[in-house]
Amino acid sequence: MPQSPSLFSADSYFSTQPPPSGLEHDISGVKEFVRRQKEKGRNVVLVTSGGTTVPLELNVVRFLDNFSAGTRGATSAEYFLKAGYAVIFMHRQFSLQPFSRHYSHSTNPFLDFLEIEPGTNMQPSSDVSDPGSMSSQICVTPNKRKDLLEVLTAYKAVHAAGTLHTLTFVTVNDYLWLLRAVSQELSVLKRKAMYYLAAAVSDFFLPRQKMSEHKIQSGKGSLHIEMDQVPKILKPMVDDWTGKDGFIVSFKLETDPALLVPKAQISLERYGHQVVIGNDLNRRKYEVVFISWKDALPPSSKGPNSDLSNPRYAESWLKIDPHDHNKEIEEDIVAELVKRHKIWITGAEASTK
Amino acid sequence: MPQSPSLFSADSYFSTQPPPSGLEHDISGVKEFVRRQKEKGRNVVLVTSGGTTVPLELNVVRFLDNFSAGTRGATSAEYFLKAGYAVIFMHRQFSLQPFSRHYSHSTNPFLDFLEIEPGTNMQPSSDVSDPGSMSSQICVTPNKRKDLLEVLTAYKAVHAAGTLHTLTFVTVNDYLWLLRAVSQELSVLKRKAMYYLAAAVSDFFLPRQKMSEHKIQSGKGSLHIEMDQVPKILKPMVDDWTGKDGFIVSFKLETDPALLVPKAQISLERYGHQVVIGNDLNRRKYEVVFISWKDALPPSSKGPNSDLSNPRYAESWLKIDPHDHNKEIEEDIVAELVKRHKIWITGAEASTK
Repeated sequence: MPQSPSLFSADSYFSTQPPPSGLEHDISGVKEFVRRQKEKGRNVVLVTSGGTTVPLELNVVRFLDNFSAGTRGATSAEYFLKAGYAVIFMHRQFSLQPFSRHYSHSTNPFLDFLEIEPGTNMQPSSDVSDPGSMSSQICVTPNKRKDLLEVLTAYKAVHAAGTLHTLTFVTVNDYLWLLRAVSQELSVLKRKAMYYLAAAVSDFFLPRQKMSEHKIQSGKGSLHIEMDQVPKILKPMVDDWTGKDGFIVSFKLETDPALLVPKAQISLERYGHQVVIGNDLNRRKYEVVFISWKDALPPSSKGPNSDLSNPRYAESWLKIDPHDHNKEIEEDIVAELVKRHKIWITGAEASTK
Repeated sequence: MPQSPSLFSADSYFSTQPPPSGLEHDISGVKEFVRRQKEKGRNVVLVTSGGTTVPLELNVVRFLDNFSAGTRGATSAEYFLKAGYAVIFMHRQFSLQPFSRHYSHSTNPFLDFLEIEPGTNMQPSSDVSDPGSMSSQICVTPNKRKDLLEVLTAYKAVHAAGTLHTLTFVTVNDYLWLLRAVSQELSVLKRKAMYYLAAAVSDFFLPRQKMSEHKIQSGKGSLHIEMDQVPKILKPMVDDWTGKDGFIVSFKLETDPALLVPKAQISLERYGHQVVIGNDLNRRKYEVVFISWKDALPPSSKGPNSDLSNPRYAESWLKIDPHDHNKEIEEDIVAELVKRHKIWITGAEASTK
């Protein structure tokens, strides 16, 4: 079947769409980070987070976006760091990040818990560049100190250990080029590399050749946008970029609950990676389902939830109490994946003995 | 000429699209805020800021967005507050806000300038709910204190005076309903109300009747989106909602420099408000043009820049040094508008004597 000119494979995508300008710089940063982690024998997880955009014009005024604050990715990254992983956090610019996520300027602005204490030294400061040292002090509201100290301590520990590397993307084009490059760099870690693909990636895009240079002028009645499908990159990721050894976890977000498990199973079957985590848009903060290969299922996870009508797949539901505001489901998601990744690594080591 | 079913006037828009759920609550908050400012005889400016979205599905996964960090609006709001105005800051949820804008988690994360100082008290804390008081202290890095103190002081003064009221929108539907309601509340202030419309509003939208409930499924080849024009609300705003007395400032953003002044003039002519501020996407941080009515031009602004080929309009360019990183163009934009607003108010007072 001849390919329509607007049907992109991964290969035709990369040969027709231009790489983002910062790519080489990003690659060398990742190369160095991965080298250091390899020396220390650490596991590394690539966490992707936030939505990708599809600009409609070259001088970007309008764009198509995917709804994603980045909560799943930013929260999971914190738990991976806590579990001793090094993390490459590849996120949508300005979306949530580990640690600072607790202090959103909209919902928990840090300016609200800083106090000004007048200074005790009555002499005017002789140091005009730093009056603060002689007069007013800034301190933290007492009832906020404990939580802030906990976050700040973890933040500083991660920075001191050098276990967090941060990259940003905006457009789906940035994302695809960066994902391929980072995967290729991580492939040297073989089975010690995990890929946690929580980003909300555009399904459709406007090829550069179809984009207008200037702002599309309104006043012409209705607006018609015709877009092409973004190539499915899980296939080359599994078969090629990650060197076939990576532990790959993808996500499926659905709004119709009836489609969730079937579509997650289809995805696993089609790409042959390790885990698909399915979530319903309206229940995702307290409920997810793990779809994986039955053969690779650790005995502890087998249970009454296994779907006997689909013998190839294991289906395992993870739920927390929706009303427990001190619990984040990502803690359990990450714990489960760390367990499964350990088995994945050990399996490779066992087979090389 | 019969109206095509997909051509919306402002009236047909509000009679067919549902109001956002928080609207009544928002209106009562604004009503109370305006009442307090009227008592104190303050000028009030409505600052709109950030981009509006057009959801493509009712269970929102994808949406069309307008590029806008909210820099113009958030920065201008700070200068209006400094100039003694009360401000209603109506912004895109999670976009930049006055004061916290200086501490973007991406470019200037506040966690980077907090230090942990070990406590001097060697006894374990007897107060388990507040160990911070007995052990570690959190303080601000010395070379960051001066700037933070300045922002924090202004922030607290504004909160103490109650001169800042914050509202949020996400969709263009939220925005239109809220803009109408807030304008109607502000109309009691007559000429003391200014409207600074810096938000990047969608030109096209999907009427509720055309939206699908569930996530549009990819895998069907290409995606076609057909959208209708958003009604131009400047007309009812000028003629109706603001009671004809508001000082209305709109913005025009263009990517083609040749279109900037002509389109700004067309806008002023079409709607009959007070000022159109034109900006070129690539030059907007250091250059804007004020288009206004020649008759209403204060003598001090007349100058060699007036466009003699367009006798009805005055054209006044405002430029700053692009390399001066300590200068924000919004300081001058606001200063100029405060001047013009004063004349607007005085003009009314003079005519009532």
